[in-house]
Amino acid sequence: MNLFYTTDIQGEMAILHEEEARHCTQVLRKKISDQIHFVDGKNTFYEGVIIEIGKKDCSIQIQQKRAEAPKDYRVHIAIAPTKNIDRLEWFAEKATEIGIDEISLLLCEHSERKNIRLDRLEKILIAAMKQSLKATLPKLNDMIAFDQFIAQTADEQRFIAYLGELSNPHLKYACPPKANSLVLIGPEGDFSAQEIQNALKTGFKGVSLSNSRLRTETAGLVACHIINFLNE
Amino acid sequence: MNLFYTTDIQGEMAILHEEEARHCTQVLRKKISDQIHFVDGKNTFYEGVIIEIGKKDCSIQIQQKRAEAPKDYRVHIAIAPTKNIDRLEWFAEKATEIGIDEISLLLCEHSERKNIRLDRLEKILIAAMKQSLKATLPKLNDMIAFDQFIAQTADEQRFIAYLGELSNPHLKYACPPKANSLVLIGPEGDFSAQEIQNALKTGFKGVSLSNSRLRTETAGLVACHIINFLNE
Repeated sequence: MNLFYTTDIQGEMAILHEEEARHCTQVLRKKISDQIHFVDGKNTFYEGVIIEIGKKDCSIQIQQKRAEAPKDYRVHIAIAPTKNIDRLEWFAEKATEIGIDEISLLLCEHSERKNIRLDRLEKILIAAMKQSLKATLPKLNDMIAFDQFIAQTADEQRFIAYLGELSNPHLKYACPPKANSLVLIGPEGDFSAQEIQNALKTGFKGVSLSNSRLRTETAGLVACHIINFLNE
Repeated sequence: MNLFYTTDIQGEMAILHEEEARHCTQVLRKKISDQIHFVDGKNTFYEGVIIEIGKKDCSIQIQQKRAEAPKDYRVHIAIAPTKNIDRLEWFAEKATEIGIDEISLLLCEHSERKNIRLDRLEKILIAAMKQSLKATLPKLNDMIAFDQFIAQTADEQRFIAYLGELSNPHLKYACPPKANSLVLIGPEGDFSAQEIQNALKTGFKGVSLSNSRLRTETAGLVACHIINFLNE
């Protein structure tokens, strides 16, 4: 099934724009009165028929809608973007497939990448949401300095994953089900000692994610999967 | 720490070849009598000093060696290569980081990709093994027809992950710890009804991996992580 995406929904009418419209009418050759399925990224699935096809958009008469099944837990990963952007991008794609509610981007002492193109990342989240037949787009937060982030975040369960501390419990033993959980994932070279100390002081719990040494993007994905796994 | 790889080890002497030698002496500028660490891909870590640097190789006098800590479980994923080869390649990289012992490549009824370059995949496994500081290279098996594979495989716990069968238990409830486990992962478009029937007849158990619809490569990685997770 092909799922389209638009936020332009008013009453019983919806409009697909630009790429979504092109994909619908030119790539998939949908015609007037054909039925399509789409989502709004805000947890609702829609079914409707095409009533008008323009050059750059496509109007849909909504026939049915239903809300995505609610979850009793929330996954938030705050990750330092990788030097090679592809690695962050696949983390974003895979996390969306597996299930993530919020992604924050951290600027850390050891970060090699200090800027990010949110629009590119947003496109990847949208494509992954549609591909995995979800109706909710993960919330994506722009890059923020580590200390500023840990001072403002309000998630219920807060963890920082880092290497070298053997006394840190595995996330699976530290993370209760049915909670809003946030895990901090450091850059290549990990968090600095100062950053770890600041997070622990602010109430974050130190955890390990695996017996193996994982790359930044793999650690992010593993943390995301562990929380989903514990709640499935 | 930089880890090198060679299988050319005789007694107290080891030789790095081609890319490994270039990386050691040209990229990292290692000189004679410098100490390096390397692995043989067969579960042993080595420490030694460079005693000779040639044009295309580099000789090492072994000083110490130790075996990788033994595991009491085994992870084998048999997966249908994706149409887009990058997706299979990242599965191979990430599975190696997380922990995998054997990868088999399946030719299925719905496979869009019918051939594969094993040498490229092998390079990725080697890089990921070194990067995650492991000493054992996953066993990589060439592409084989689905029915031939399920008829010959001898793993203790055998699972087939597919969509659309709601009565299939989640792998976490089906897979006992401390076992040799094999999970079959289908291509885009999943296994055919016939393939699923043949696997179940041969003693494979049907399982689900997630509440979400996962791409082939994501399903492979999730299966790999679940088995490691249950044994960590």
